[in-house]
Amino acid sequence: MKPADPPKPASGPTRARAATLTDVARLAGVSVATASKALNGRSQVRAETRVRVQEAAERLAFRPNPLARSLLAGRTGTVGLLTSDLEGRFSIPILMGAEDAFGAGRAAVFLCDARGDSIREQHHVQALLERRVDGLIVVGSRTDPRPSLGRGLPVPVVYAYAPSSDTDEDLSIVPDSVGAGRMAVGHLLACGRSRIAHITGDVNYLAARERAEGAARAMGEAGLHLLEEPLYGNWSEGWGRAAATMLLDRHPDLDALLCGSDQIARGALDILRERGRTVPDEVAVMGFDNWHAVTDGARPSLTSVDHNLQEIGRVAAQALFQAIDGRMRRGVELQPGRVVIRASTVALG
Amino acid sequence: MKPADPPKPASGPTRARAATLTDVARLAGVSVATASKALNGRSQVRAETRVRVQEAAERLAFRPNPLARSLLAGRTGTVGLLTSDLEGRFSIPILMGAEDAFGAGRAAVFLCDARGDSIREQHHVQALLERRVDGLIVVGSRTDPRPSLGRGLPVPVVYAYAPSSDTDEDLSIVPDSVGAGRMAVGHLLACGRSRIAHITGDVNYLAARERAEGAARAMGEAGLHLLEEPLYGNWSEGWGRAAATMLLDRHPDLDALLCGSDQIARGALDILRERGRTVPDEVAVMGFDNWHAVTDGARPSLTSVDHNLQEIGRVAAQALFQAIDGRMRRGVELQPGRVVIRASTVALG
Repeated sequence: MKPADPPKPASGPTRARAATLTDVARLAGVSVATASKALNGRSQVRAETRVRVQEAAERLAFRPNPLARSLLAGRTGTVGLLTSDLEGRFSIPILMGAEDAFGAGRAAVFLCDARGDSIREQHHVQALLERRVDGLIVVGSRTDPRPSLGRGLPVPVVYAYAPSSDTDEDLSIVPDSVGAGRMAVGHLLACGRSRIAHITGDVNYLAARERAEGAARAMGEAGLHLLEEPLYGNWSEGWGRAAATMLLDRHPDLDALLCGSDQIARGALDILRERGRTVPDEVAVMGFDNWHAVTDGARPSLTSVDHNLQEIGRVAAQALFQAIDGRMRRGVELQPGRVVIRASTVALG
Repeated sequence: MKPADPPKPASGPTRARAATLTDVARLAGVSVATASKALNGRSQVRAETRVRVQEAAERLAFRPNPLARSLLAGRTGTVGLLTSDLEGRFSIPILMGAEDAFGAGRAAVFLCDARGDSIREQHHVQALLERRVDGLIVVGSRTDPRPSLGRGLPVPVVYAYAPSSDTDEDLSIVPDSVGAGRMAVGHLLACGRSRIAHITGDVNYLAARERAEGAARAMGEAGLHLLEEPLYGNWSEGWGRAAATMLLDRHPDLDALLCGSDQIARGALDILRERGRTVPDEVAVMGFDNWHAVTDGARPSLTSVDHNLQEIGRVAAQALFQAIDGRMRRGVELQPGRVVIRASTVALG
């Protein structure tokens, strides 16, 4: 069969429309169904036909619609992104990273915010399943384990930031908080500090306890100890001011304050300034979270550990795609953070 | 025809399953199609039949699935939420408000982040239209007009926060920035202040210019003037510190600083503190945005204008539903803010 002429470009000032599967089928002289099977690598098509269809697709610069491709594979090309806390500043970068990975033409994202309410979450899960999503990402607002959505769901689920409590069955992508604490102390030690105290947030947060554990371990490995046990409180500037005041009274010779969040660190910086202690010459200060609204306005600008949250979102999205393709990983995977060095630990330039 | 028995509740410890349209049809002794038409108010059903179906639905406590109802009305029950800046702190509360209005079982939300890139935005719009969304909400990250998506779209569009430049055709729900400036000065005047200066952010932002305009008007209506022309700069604490320093030097007797953002106000508060000027006794300070991360940690806590962003999202979502039902409003609708009073303007408690 002689291939037909390719479709003529549209006339007039508008650009030629993109070639469709119908155009490819016409040019290759086959049915649309056959062209589809050939391009999707199904085995029911003769090799000779497949080559002819592929040549036609190339000649027309045919780009298969990702949605159409998903539908051919029995999928909807949609995924659900279930967050417990849209307002929370940790959820957003994770959503962005996931949306980034999905947005590359691979899937459209249904967004649902459960507002920390498990009834609402169940409602959203049901609504998403009724819409036949191909998979779900569940984004938490803190790193403490959360209940699994269960083993009975018809689609794969990946947990991000807050791990599932069912670690045998579910896959969770979470920040490495012990590693973050270790990394922070490593930076302070590298800056020549040794009389280090740790002020941190609410002891009910696993992230607070794990960062403290990592910090203590890194001190131990250097043959040192923190000046005293970590001071747990809450995540506010006010607590940072109060705790820094106490520590300066008890340990006038301290040379570094490691703070469990940027806001705590901001409070500590204000007290050091008011007491005339220079930062970083006399006392180095660092925080966690790398929250620019706080780190950049501080005097001096604040060194902080960034948890690479967008990367957590991207990795979770990629793991979900793999799971949809039948390759489900399980367990808890830790994503490392990084120290962003600013003027509160090192006299820069 | 005698109605059949209602379906028996499921046995065992689980709760009875919800009644389906099939159950209603069986009980009313009609076909599923007839039951559906009767419940959706179509005119092809005889009055007697309609009553029988409605009674059956009531007896079974049948709640029609909103998705099913949308589909019967020729809709997909999905809407697109297109943001230009997912990271931006103004977009998130608007998304939350819209998600809230949609999430009441009326529609599922596709989330797309254009990252401020118009090519990416076009790609997202096409992808959403291919998925046959019933409508779109476009959320901007600043109040300056943005290009319309155009008049040729097959579904209604509502713009939130950033208005469409096509004010004749499109509907935009935006904060009332002139009113916010007026409201802020009103509060300072009510607190007995009269020697008021205004520090604000980037002059290229319409919000900065409109808040300044509202502030100047409110002063004029009180027979007063701002101490000098508004000081435009940027939205940072650093600018707040620099501008407050200049103003205190030029006007040692000023009794209020109105700051165009909470971060600017935070910088101003730090300078007042360092200079030993008491707040609010000697100088009242207020900001805009009511950003809790800044207002609550400040010393004293910061009075600020809240733009009611969640309400903007809710109103936009409700307007979109009306438009989908054929009642499209047009033009720019202003949403008022509110003053949240804290200790930086009034000696509380």
